[in-house]
Amino acid sequence: MAPVQGTYDYDLIVIGGGSAGLACAKEAVLNGARVACLDYVKPTPTLGTKWGVGGTCVNVGCIPKKLMHQASLLGEAVHEAAAYGWNVDDKIKPDWNKLVQSVQNHIKSVNWVTRVDLRDKKVEYINGLGSFVDSHTMLAKLKSGERTITAQTFVIAVGGRPRYPDIPGAVEHGITSDDLFSLDREPGKTLVVGAGYIGLECAGFLKGLGYEPTVMVRSIVLRGFDQQMAELVASSMEERGIPFLRKSVPLSVEKQDDGKLLVKYQNTETGEEAEELFDTVLWAIGRKGLVDDLNLPNAGVSVQKDKIPVDSQEATNVANIYAVGDIIYGKPELTPVAVLAGRLLARRLYGGATQRMDYNDVATTVFTPLEYACVGLSEEDAVKQYGADEVEVFHGYYKPTEFFIPQKSVRYCYLKAVAERHGDQRVYGLHYLGPVAGEVIQGFAAALKSGLTINTLINTVGIHPTTAEEFTRLSITKRSGLDPTPASCCS
Amino acid sequence: MAPVQGTYDYDLIVIGGGSAGLACAKEAVLNGARVACLDYVKPTPTLGTKWGVGGTCVNVGCIPKKLMHQASLLGEAVHEAAAYGWNVDDKIKPDWNKLVQSVQNHIKSVNWVTRVDLRDKKVEYINGLGSFVDSHTMLAKLKSGERTITAQTFVIAVGGRPRYPDIPGAVEHGITSDDLFSLDREPGKTLVVGAGYIGLECAGFLKGLGYEPTVMVRSIVLRGFDQQMAELVASSMEERGIPFLRKSVPLSVEKQDDGKLLVKYQNTETGEEAEELFDTVLWAIGRKGLVDDLNLPNAGVSVQKDKIPVDSQEATNVANIYAVGDIIYGKPELTPVAVLAGRLLARRLYGGATQRMDYNDVATTVFTPLEYACVGLSEEDAVKQYGADEVEVFHGYYKPTEFFIPQKSVRYCYLKAVAERHGDQRVYGLHYLGPVAGEVIQGFAAALKSGLTINTLINTVGIHPTTAEEFTRLSITKRSGLDPTPASCCS
Repeated sequence: MAPVQGTYDYDLIVIGGGSAGLACAKEAVLNGARVACLDYVKPTPTLGTKWGVGGTCVNVGCIPKKLMHQASLLGEAVHEAAAYGWNVDDKIKPDWNKLVQSVQNHIKSVNWVTRVDLRDKKVEYINGLGSFVDSHTMLAKLKSGERTITAQTFVIAVGGRPRYPDIPGAVEHGITSDDLFSLDREPGKTLVVGAGYIGLECAGFLKGLGYEPTVMVRSIVLRGFDQQMAELVASSMEERGIPFLRKSVPLSVEKQDDGKLLVKYQNTETGEEAEELFDTVLWAIGRKGLVDDLNLPNAGVSVQKDKIPVDSQEATNVANIYAVGDIIYGKPELTPVAVLAGRLLARRLYGGATQRMDYNDVATTVFTPLEYACVGLSEEDAVKQYGADEVEVFHGYYKPTEFFIPQKSVRYCYLKAVAERHGDQRVYGLHYLGPVAGEVIQGFAAALKSGLTINTLINTVGIHPTTAEEFTRLSITKRSGLDPTPASCCS
Repeated sequence: MAPVQGTYDYDLIVIGGGSAGLACAKEAVLNGARVACLDYVKPTPTLGTKWGVGGTCVNVGCIPKKLMHQASLLGEAVHEAAAYGWNVDDKIKPDWNKLVQSVQNHIKSVNWVTRVDLRDKKVEYINGLGSFVDSHTMLAKLKSGERTITAQTFVIAVGGRPRYPDIPGAVEHGITSDDLFSLDREPGKTLVVGAGYIGLECAGFLKGLGYEPTVMVRSIVLRGFDQQMAELVASSMEERGIPFLRKSVPLSVEKQDDGKLLVKYQNTETGEEAEELFDTVLWAIGRKGLVDDLNLPNAGVSVQKDKIPVDSQEATNVANIYAVGDIIYGKPELTPVAVLAGRLLARRLYGGATQRMDYNDVATTVFTPLEYACVGLSEEDAVKQYGADEVEVFHGYYKPTEFFIPQKSVRYCYLKAVAERHGDQRVYGLHYLGPVAGEVIQGFAAALKSGLTINTLINTVGIHPTTAEEFTRLSITKRSGLDPTPASCCS
C-alpha cells in the first residue's frame, strides 16, 4: 500500500542518521519521497564523548575499530619486516594521541562526506532528538528549541549504545567503546569486561598497541558464534599474552588516589572474590536499543527487551511505522545488514518493489589479532537443525606461507566447512580463523548464496599461495578422526 | 582400461617432481600403484643455480616470489606504521642477502618435507634425468650412472624453464627467475624484459625492496588477461615509479669494465635505437616446455611448440603416456591446476574414477604491488563469445578504509563483474585490483562455479569494512556511462 502524499510535512521521517537510516532515507528520496532524517547523539555519561552524523559504524564502531586493528597489525608488521631483512629497529612504541587524532580526522572527513551526500540527495537533515506525539507526529528537540513535524510514514533506525553494569563506580570510572576511540590519554593496563566481538576486538588491538588488556568473561566467549571457533579465538589471544578471567563478574570499581582503578570481582562458580588495579575499565557487556527517548507508547509501538520487533517487511505493530538496523529485535547488528534492509524497505515503500531482506547466511568477521570470519550456520546450529548424523564437518589446520620467515604461530590457523552429510553435501556454514578473514570469507558468502556444495568447493581450483585456497583443500572430516594437520605444500 | 600390473618395473613412472608430478605420484600410490618419480634439475646456464625436489613452484616460482612480494609489502607497512603513530624510523633498507637466506631456508625446509612425504607415501624418488627408449622404457641418467627402467604407464610432468632471447650477451650476462631468488648480490638497477605476470611481479617486489626496476614491453602487458585490468596494473606500477619501455625489444647486452650491463634496444614502431646501463638484466619473456631431453620421438609422443598436446583425459597421442602440469599445451600454467589435474589423473588411472579436470574458470592472482586477481572470462573474451550487446559490465572504483591514514593512492583500486546482460545475469568473470587480491577472489571462484548471478552478488550482504565487500556494492554499468567513483561509506 503506497502512502498518501501531501497531508503531512513529510512522506517519511527516518529517526536515526546511522547506516540503516541514511541508506533508507537516500533510497526513499531517489524513489520520489519527501524525506527528513533526524539524528542526535547523546554524550557519553562521564567523559561526554559525542560525534557527528553517520551513526555507530562511522563514529564509534566498524571504522575506528578497523583502523585501530590495522594500527595494531602494522605494529606486528614492523617486527615481521625485520625478520624479512629490513634494517628496522623493532623496539617500537605507539603514539596513542597521534593514532586517535588520525582516526578522528578520518571520521570527521566521513561525517563531512555524509553531510554533503545527504544535501546532494535532497534528504533534509535535522539534528534533533525525536519523540513520538502520536503515530504520525514527532516532537524534535533541536538546539534552537522544539519543533513538531508530521509524516505519513516513520522508519525507526536509532540503533543502540553500550550498556553499563549496575555496580558501584561503573558509570563514573568506566568507559565504553563510545569513548575509547577518542580517549585523550593512553588506555594503559585495561580491563575489558565482556567477551563478545566488541570486547575481544578492543582487547586485541590494545594488546597489539602494547597496552596490557585483560578480558573478563561471565559465561561464554563470542555468544552466538560457533563455539569451537570462539574458543580458538580466545586461545589465540591468550597465546599472545591476553589473560582471560573466566566465570567472573565485576562487583565494583573504585578510584585510588593515584588515579588507578581498583576492580573487585567475583568468580561465579566458587564465589571467591578478588581484586586488581587497572588504568582503564572498558565495559563491553552488550548494547541497549535506544527506545527510551522515542516515547513509543504515544505511537503504540511495541517493544521487546529494549528492541523493536518487526515482521519480514520490517513493519512494527503500528501500520505506518517501520524499524531497521540495530534497533530491531533478534537480527544481526551489522552495518551492511542495516544498509541493505534500509534500502530494500525504501524501495518497497516508494519504488513498488517487493524484495524483502534476507537475514540468513550473513557473513561476518571478528577483527581479533588473528581474525575470525564465518558465514552460514555454526556447527552446533547445524547439528541442532539437521541432527548430528546428517551433518559432516570438514576441517583442517594450515600454515600461511608468510608466517614461516617471521616464525609466527600457526597453531590457531584453522578452518572448517559444515555441510550436509548425504546427497549433494550442500554447505551450511564456513568458518575461518586466520589473516584477512573478512576478505577471505566474503566471496564464499556469495558462493553459499549460490548453493555451494562440498563437491564444488573441493573442485574449485585454488589460488596459490593464499590462505583462502585452504578451503579448496579440505579433505579430512571430523567423523574420520584423522589428523587435520597439513602435510605437504604445493603438491 | 586399467593397466596390466606386474610385467614392468613399475606400474607408473612420473617424470618430474614438481606440483603435478608429485600430486599424481602420491595419489597413484594411494590407489595401489607401484610408482617411481624421476626428478632432475639442470643448473642455469651461467650462474649454475639449481635446487631440490618440488619443482618450479616451491623452488623458483610461487613460494619465493610470494615471500619476496611479502618482504616488499612489509617495507610499505613500515611506512604505514609511522603514519598510524608508531615511532618507527621509516628510512629503512633491505638486507638482500638476509632476505635470500631466509627465502632459501624456507625452500630447503619445504624440499625436506616433500622428501619425507614421498618416503611416507611410498613413492620411489629417483634423482635422475629421464629419456624415453621406447614407450614403456626409460633411460635415467643418475649421478651414479645410467639405469634402464620400465613402466606400464608414464606421466610426463617435467614443466618448463624460462626462455632466453637470441641476442648477443643474453645468456652470459642475463639472469632469469631461476636465478633471482638465490642471487648472491643485490640486483640493483634492473631491466626486466617481459611484461607477463612473472616480469611484473619481479619488477614490483624489486621496486618495493628499494631497487630500480624498468620493465621492457615488446607488445602488450599481461597477455591473456583482461586488457583493461592489465593496463591498470601497469599504470599502478608506473605511479610507483617503475618506468615501462613500451614497444621495445632488446638487441644486445654488453658487460662494461665496471661490471655494469649496457643494454641496447630498439623501438619496434619507430625503429629507433637506444641504450641504458643496468646492474642486472632479468629475462621474463616466457617459458619453454622441457621436452628436449625426453627423447619423445623414441616413444612416439607428439609435440607442439615445446609443449605436449593432451586430450580431456590428459592422454597424449601414445596410449600409455599422459602429461600434466606446465608441459601440456594450451592450459593455464598454475600450481593448483597441476596438482588437481595430476591427482584426478591418478584416480582415473588407478582408482576407477571418471572425473576429469575442468580447466575453465580457474582463478589466478598477479602479485604486483597492488595485486590483481580474476576468475572467469575477461571482458574482451566475454564480448567475443557472447557479443557486445549480450554482455553487461558492472564496475567501480573504491577506497580501502586502511588507505586513508597513510594516504596511499586509491587511484587504481578498481573492480568489475562481467555478466550476462539479460536473463539471470549469470556472472562470466570477476576482476579485482587491490590489496590481498588472491584472498578476495578465491571465494568468488567457488561462487562462479556455483552459478553466481548478479542478483545473488548484489544481494549478498557485505562484510564491513573490507575491500571484498565492494563486489556486493557494484551497481554502475559501463553501458550507463555513469561515474563509477564511490560516494558514501557505510550507508
